[in-house]
Order: sequence, then structure tokens, then C-alpha cells
Amino acid sequence: MIYFDNAATTRLDEVVLEAMMPYLTAHYGNASSVHALGRETRTAMEKARKQIATLMGAKPGEIFFTSCGTESTNTVLFGAVRDLGCRHIITSPIEHHATLHTAEFLAAQGACALHTVSLTQDGHIDYVDLERLLQECEGEKIVSLMHANNELGNLSDVHLIGELCRKYKAYFHTDAVQTLGHYPLDINTFQPDFLSASAHKFHGPKGSGILYIRSGIVLKPLIHGGSQERMMRSGTENIANAVGFAKALEMALLHLQEEAVFIQSLKSYMIDGLRRIFPDIEFHGDVSEKSLYTVLNVSFPKTERTEMLSMNLDIAGICVSGGSACSSGANVGSHVIRATYPHRNAVPVRFSFSKHNTFEEIDIVLQKLTEFVV
Amino acid sequence: MIYFDNAATTRLDEVVLEAMMPYLTAHYGNASSVHALGRETRTAMEKARKQIATLMGAKPGEIFFTSCGTESTNTVLFGAVRDLGCRHIITSPIEHHATLHTAEFLAAQGACALHTVSLTQDGHIDYVDLERLLQECEGEKIVSLMHANNELGNLSDVHLIGELCRKYKAYFHTDAVQTLGHYPLDINTFQPDFLSASAHKFHGPKGSGILYIRSGIVLKPLIHGGSQERMMRSGTENIANAVGFAKALEMALLHLQEEAVFIQSLKSYMIDGLRRIFPDIEFHGDVSEKSLYTVLNVSFPKTERTEMLSMNLDIAGICVSGGSACSSGANVGSHVIRATYPHRNAVPVRFSFSKHNTFEEIDIVLQKLTEFVV
Repeated sequence: MIYFDNAATTRLDEVVLEAMMPYLTAHYGNASSVHALGRETRTAMEKARKQIATLMGAKPGEIFFTSCGTESTNTVLFGAVRDLGCRHIITSPIEHHATLHTAEFLAAQGACALHTVSLTQDGHIDYVDLERLLQECEGEKIVSLMHANNELGNLSDVHLIGELCRKYKAYFHTDAVQTLGHYPLDINTFQPDFLSASAHKFHGPKGSGILYIRSGIVLKPLIHGGSQERMMRSGTENIANAVGFAKALEMALLHLQEEAVFIQSLKSYMIDGLRRIFPDIEFHGDVSEKSLYTVLNVSFPKTERTEMLSMNLDIAGICVSGGSACSSGANVGSHVIRATYPHRNAVPVRFSFSKHNTFEEIDIVLQKLTEFVV
Repeated sequence: MIYFDNAATTRLDEVVLEAMMPYLTAHYGNASSVHALGRETRTAMEKARKQIATLMGAKPGEIFFTSCGTESTNTVLFGAVRDLGCRHIITSPIEHHATLHTAEFLAAQGACALHTVSLTQDGHIDYVDLERLLQECEGEKIVSLMHANNELGNLSDVHLIGELCRKYKAYFHTDAVQTLGHYPLDINTFQPDFLSASAHKFHGPKGSGILYIRSGIVLKPLIHGGSQERMMRSGTENIANAVGFAKALEMALLHLQEEAVFIQSLKSYMIDGLRRIFPDIEFHGDVSEKSLYTVLNVSFPKTERTEMLSMNLDIAGICVSGGSACSSGANVGSHVIRATYPHRNAVPVRFSFSKHNTFEEIDIVLQKLTEFVV
């Protein structure tokens, strides 16, 4: 089995699972219980929160644990419209559905207007158009743009977006699901108001998200109840997953530089190999340095053979993706590719890498691609 | 350490953790990925869903995985008001905050009217008053009443509530967080439209809830995004926790009869012991058979000594609760006790038991109570 679908999810690290295990066994207290067993898990939660905050340059009080990145993003967009008076959501047509479907739902309810920024030819945000939208939208507004696109790999200039948002007094939310744990993310350098992230994208557990909310901003919760997470997120705390998030982030950042270099070299090796086999090969998204080192989206010309490609790779024990995992069941194709390349008649195949992959695996995949495509 | 706070949370069973482990290690695929590693986890999710459905007399398509019981309840109440046109929520003043705070939020927004049913002297639902409310509330309405109260232990007659709801064409949601896994719960016998439950209350993992929605009822999701859970709950699936829910429920029901008898005998032994030491001792809630066998809420007359009781028990290594764990940090006392016994000047101490407790532990606790109270 060759796993080249690390943008969909990653393997939980053994050392992360080890850190979680006490909270799946002996330390099972409810973190909101005041007795010793509860205080013990409360301490673990708060230690995890503090660690995550420190690693992001945030304050512990700005970090809230959620069940996933999607929940974090929903909390932000519902809250911005309901509690901050935002009448405009400015986003892009290639955001993750957590953003797009939530924004569309809010707009369909008449709660706000939805604006999508134009894209450049290779799927980057058109920052001139973003500034135009910011100028045009009057009153309170929120910009929700992802740090990196999960299908194309394109990295946005969050510093520039942050600057524009401050200039035009817009709230700024970034979906950093593909970048936290992959880049040294310091909140202070680009000053978002909100940030969503998810542990399972960097070898943490599934069902473990965080939401960063800049201190001073007050939202109502998405999920009401026992007032956990300082009233921002009710529901009995998932201590193991909070601890797992912190440990995964710690481990990811500890070895970030060397792992990033290694994974980038895998990606470059794959690009070189593809160009050797298919001299005219094209890619979806930007493959320059403004791109995730983990993601490579190949644009195979549509033929009878390439339409079977993902399936044939699967049969050969190679896991890749045609789009994002979330909507893969729907079989409607990728909204990201459609929006970026409306006229290209191609089959997108996303290869996404982790530290566990090898050059040998890429050789095998290139060999299989030769068999299946040529 | 003596753990008498099992209504707050329970220890994860080893056999449940064992069932979860493959999905925390080798089988890490995204359940929405179409390749082999994804199909494998998808299969595990659907097997878990089918098993839970079978154990509840439901159809697999009626079971949705969520991150907790609180999320399930929020999904129901928001959906009932928004999508089913409910203009009335009928509930009780002693529901869990997942219900009350959500209903209060919706009512404060002007989305619906909130009605609370009267209680009998020992904290049971006044079914005559419930029928009166059902008669008075015109148009679409939802009744949200918990199957068992988490603080008092009182069991509601969900069969009668279900009957009344059908008679007056009201939707019926029950929070079964304290009863699923503790009673043989067959959906068909009381026909709720919605049911919320949580695995960690019966030795399953934290962060693992389900929502039952009767087939034919269509709600919009609370959390929008990648359209997982047949569009009802977006966010990458937490496979380990879904599998853990199913295994915990299987194990709970497998040994239900003998464990229920054993735990009831612990509770009875504690009641007898308390009455021996404190001949005039009173309880909060009904201690007859219309009560959870897991919960005993003792009403200690308020004195300087009893006000220190929970703390002194804690110091002695005995974990109990003064109210529900969720609001224990708030230090405002229990809304349940306040609503049921507005004139009683007492200190509530909730002892809640599991199969892991022993008669010897009760002897020790009774001894400590003698020391701390008498």
C-alpha cells in the first residue's frame, strides 16, 4: 500500500497516541468535575491549550477546542453574521466546503451577502479584486480565505490579506487546516481574527480541531449547553483529543524544517519524473514555491485511460484523490478545479505526501502511471 | 480513589479501546476517501452505525454520528425551529443545559416560544400539565424531555410522553444520555422523533455522540461543510469514536441485566446505610423504581459541615458531584435542585455508580460521611 493522500488525512503518530493513552485509560475524569480526577484532566486540557497557544504565538484564552476544523469554521461564520453584525462574507470560489457551504447557507437565509474574489490563472487569490471587494462592501464584513488550498496546494499571502483586512476594517478568518503543523505559523505576523485548524492533517487524532479567536472578540457559541470552553463550545471535553492536538503540533514543529525539506524533495522528484514520462504534463494550481510542499495536483488530459486512473491506481494499492475527500462520495467532480480551470478538459489526480513516504514509492507510482496512462 | 461520579463520565472499557485501536493506528484512512484505505474505514463506520441501529430497533439511516450528546440536542432544537416550523419548544426546568440553554437561545432570538412543564414534588414531569401545554400550543411544536434526569436520577415515562406527542401532533425529542447503554432502549416502543446519546456515559469514548432522527424527517445540519453523514454532519469522520460507540453499546447491553441488578444493589445498600447513620436523611428526586439505578442524590441539611462535604470527600479520595459536571465550574449551584426544591435548604451530593464500584467502597464512603457530617 502506497499512501499519497495525506491532504485527506494522515497517520496518527505513535508518540501522539502515547500522549493520549493516559486519557483513554486511567485518567478518565470529566474535565469539568471539581474532584481530583476531574482537576487532573482539566490540568491536562489547559496544559494542551497553553502549549498550542505558545506554538502559535497566541494567548491560551484565544484557543478553543472543537471537534474538527469544520466546526471551527462554522462557529466563526455563524458568529460573525449573528454577533458581529457582518453583512458581507468575502471568500473565494475554491474554499473548502466548510467555508463555502456555511457561507452559502447564511446567504440563502438572507443573513448576509456572499462575495467571491476572482482568481488568477493558476488559482491564486486576485488581491486587486479582493481590495475592490473590500472597498465596495459597506459596514461590517468578514473575509474568509484559506491559508492553503487543499486541492491545488496554492498558498495564499495571508500577510497581505491580513493587511488589507485591517486597512478596510474587515474581520479576517483563515482556514489553516492544511498549514498548521506544516509551516511555522505565528499569529502575530499576519494577525487573523479567527483561525481554524485540525489535528488529523498533521498526524494528530481525527475529531480534534481548534478555533483561534483574537482576544476582545466575543462570539456566541455554535453549540449551546454546559458552558464548557468558557461558554464557547459546550459538550463534555474530549481530553485525549485536546492532548493529542498539542502533542501532534509539538512534534510537527519540532522536526518541521527537515521534514519540510524532505517532503518538498519528494514532490520535486515526482514533478521531474512526471515531466520525463509526460513531457507536456500540466498541473492544477501553482507548483512554484507558493505551494504546499505536501500537495501535487496533476492535470491528466481526459482520455478513456485517464478517466480510469484513480481506480487503477487504487487497484494497484496506491491511494490518491481526485478532489477533496469530503465530497468524493458525491461524484460531482471538484468545485475547485471547475472554478479554476473551467475550460480545461482534464482529470485531476492529487498526490499528497507526508514524512512517511519515500522516493521508492514515487518510483513505483511513476512506473504505474506509465502503465496506466501512456 | 473511589469514583462515585459515573453520571459525569465513566471509565473507557478496555475492550472498547481495543476495538478502537485499529482506527488509531493502521486503519487511518479518511472514511470519505474512495480508495482502499478509505473504503476500509467507511465499512467500519457503517458497520458501527448498523450495529447501533439494530441495538436500538432503528434503521441505520436513522443514526447519525456527532461529537457529543450536546451537539445532537443542538442539531434537533435548531432544526425543529428552523426547518420544521416549530414555534413552540415544550421542555422542563430540569433538563440538561444542552436542551435548556439551546431552547433559551432560540427563544431569545424570537425564533420560538419556550414552555416549561410543571414538576411533581419529587421532580417528575407533571403529565397533566404536559397535556395542557400540548393542547394550548398551536401549530408545529416540539417536546424535548430527557429520559432520565442526570442529577436527580428520575426516570420519565417516555412511553406516555410519546403517546401524548402523537396525540397532539408534536415532535418528540428525548435526551437519553443517561439511559442508552443502561436500559434496553427500543425506539419502537416509545417512538421518539429524535434521540440524543453519548458514549462516555456507558464506558465508551468521550467526543462520541449519536443522533437518532426518525426516517422521513428532514433537518438541515448544524455544521455545514463536506456533507459527511449524508449531509447531516460535516467534518472528517471520527472513525475510532464511532466504532467505540458501537462497541460500548454492544458490551453494555450484553451484560445489562446482571450489571443493572448489581448496581441497583449498590444503590440500595447505600440508601440503607445512609438511613442507618442519618435516620432523617432525605433525597433529591424519587428513589423508587422510577429512578436510575446508577444515581443517588442525597439531600444533606445545610450546615457548616455539610457545606464542606464534597471538598472533604475529595480530600479523602472520594469523587462525587454537587450537580452536573458541566456547570460545576460556575459555582452557581444546580438549576435542577433549585427548580425542584426551591424551599429546601440543603446540600446536594450526587453519588453515581458503575459496574466497577463495590460494596466495600460504599462502606468506606459511609464511614467518611459519618466522620464529616455527624
